[in-house]
Amino acid sequence: MDTTLTKAYGTDSAKAPLHDMEIKRRALLENDVEIEILYCGICHSDLHAIKNDWGGTTYPIVPGHEIVGKITKTGDKVARFKVGDLAAIGCIVDSCRNCEHCHNSEEMFCEKGWTLVFNAPDKHLGGVTYGGFSKNIVADADYVLKMPAFENLAAAAPLLCAGITVYSPLRHWHAGPGKKIGIIGIGGLGHMAIKIAKAMGSQVVVFTTSPDKMDDAKRLGADEAVLSKDADQMKTQKGFDMILDTVSARHDVNMYLNTLKVDGSLVLVGLPNEPLEIGAFNVVNGRKSFSGSNIGGIAETQEMLDFCKEHNITADIELIQTDEINVALERLERNDVKYRFVIDLKS
Amino acid sequence: MDTTLTKAYGTDSAKAPLHDMEIKRRALLENDVEIEILYCGICHSDLHAIKNDWGGTTYPIVPGHEIVGKITKTGDKVARFKVGDLAAIGCIVDSCRNCEHCHNSEEMFCEKGWTLVFNAPDKHLGGVTYGGFSKNIVADADYVLKMPAFENLAAAAPLLCAGITVYSPLRHWHAGPGKKIGIIGIGGLGHMAIKIAKAMGSQVVVFTTSPDKMDDAKRLGADEAVLSKDADQMKTQKGFDMILDTVSARHDVNMYLNTLKVDGSLVLVGLPNEPLEIGAFNVVNGRKSFSGSNIGGIAETQEMLDFCKEHNITADIELIQTDEINVALERLERNDVKYRFVIDLKS
Repeated sequence: MDTTLTKAYGTDSAKAPLHDMEIKRRALLENDVEIEILYCGICHSDLHAIKNDWGGTTYPIVPGHEIVGKITKTGDKVARFKVGDLAAIGCIVDSCRNCEHCHNSEEMFCEKGWTLVFNAPDKHLGGVTYGGFSKNIVADADYVLKMPAFENLAAAAPLLCAGITVYSPLRHWHAGPGKKIGIIGIGGLGHMAIKIAKAMGSQVVVFTTSPDKMDDAKRLGADEAVLSKDADQMKTQKGFDMILDTVSARHDVNMYLNTLKVDGSLVLVGLPNEPLEIGAFNVVNGRKSFSGSNIGGIAETQEMLDFCKEHNITADIELIQTDEINVALERLERNDVKYRFVIDLKS
Repeated sequence: MDTTLTKAYGTDSAKAPLHDMEIKRRALLENDVEIEILYCGICHSDLHAIKNDWGGTTYPIVPGHEIVGKITKTGDKVARFKVGDLAAIGCIVDSCRNCEHCHNSEEMFCEKGWTLVFNAPDKHLGGVTYGGFSKNIVADADYVLKMPAFENLAAAAPLLCAGITVYSPLRHWHAGPGKKIGIIGIGGLGHMAIKIAKAMGSQVVVFTTSPDKMDDAKRLGADEAVLSKDADQMKTQKGFDMILDTVSARHDVNMYLNTLKVDGSLVLVGLPNEPLEIGAFNVVNGRKSFSGSNIGGIAETQEMLDFCKEHNITADIELIQTDEINVALERLERNDVKYRFVIDLKS
């Protein structure tokens, strides 16, 4: 298969810093588009993959799954995009297209397994897929989003993972007017969840362990911020229809289960490495649920982008140049970012 | 308030055996009925309460919340019952009647807290309520069920707790034709769940740790029985819409979460004393839920009794005499019962 070379930023081992490298992109198939990448967000799962925290990383790895750019070429059968269009790619670049879930555009549930934009087996070129820490990317147009013309395009990149990861469960569990929604944690996911849940019309209460983030929670749109370490503050909390839990470290979920309404759900989108402990009475009383959610399908991702454009929602970001990626990854590991790094790949 | 004395079986401490005692029942209020108790099931939560395992037991305690009997007196305003009618009482004998949940006859979610038939504050007589290990009981007719004329009335007593505890979540999570339902554990709750889930039209798969219960699972109506300790057998299990978990000891729920379909729910009705550990990926992937459920409301309990009569469903019981209660409790503690003890209170 014909290929072209493009500049990318990746690493050959869990312990080495990222560096410039050349990677191959496939020549366009008839339904493919080529995208010049303008911006790519840095998500904590990029860092987990680089460090092989969850196992299964293949090196060299080029991470990046919050990709925004411009169409530079289109395959012969591509009608949805033309050269110059803004476009975006999130986690999913392929799936079986034949199962019940693909038919419903819930490709994240594809029965054959969907293809992650980076470090997943590449069925065209062999090896693994290379993500958005690169100058361009080739992908099947069916998995490419139409990117609305956000005023701050860089700040919209994190919508492709952080945005959809919170939007999808907020929709699924019916956030909206008359609903009281809790958000645990103010980070990459949490700060997006506050904005989106509020734009959906919900009452939004934020739980944080950081006194210095209390004001930020309000600025981001929360109706109330609660210091979760303060037992007195926690005692007064109740009546939640749904609580979205964005925390990726081990933490006590029982105190949150106890603030849910009857039939309420605590929905985990963080990915702690260690299991969480749940007391039986905390779900049995009030028929409560501890649930999980992971990204969203292509159709819902498009819906989310359009929703965010309509409501003028983007991420709070620190825009970095390509020579700052390693510093950014180090800071991300210490949670020292408000609230998402985005790489300027034009740099 | 006028009272009458009745014979009951209770204990004055967590360590003493049950013995005969006289307890007071209130004189009938206008909406009360008096019931001569014919049969009362022995549930594991009676044993927990006797032993004060969950704390909060007030002594003397007279347990029993699977009560079947005959109406012997009716208050002036009672129209639903007449003397001689079969009647039944489960866990709930009172609630606020004014909250959203009471209005929906989901009294188990009453915002003011409902009154348990035994060992709950007795607002009429002071002290605590006394349950079904007794010769008669007085209760508000609104919380008394019409008992269908089961051929084996004694075997129908466990429907009042074990039956509704599994019926309610099976209905709530839509067990029925086309649905694949798992049942974990074959005990008082599990054996009822097999019968009821099957009668609802579901495909039923039973998970047990006991090789000697495999045949029993089939006899009770299961389509398939799986030895949950056998990793090879577990590996082949998948596609469950809902799994009802009746186990009351600490156990690994993750292997069951992994057998659920997308959007599937593992629903706990057992009450392990220790928390259960859940790995984040096991709920995040496939948007799965770990949920709980606890008994059911009065209207649904009546629906369940009528459903069981229509489908000829009762519990598998060992009928005991009143002088065998302590032996039965000892055997219950060792899980040595197939599958429910019922006391013959006419004895």
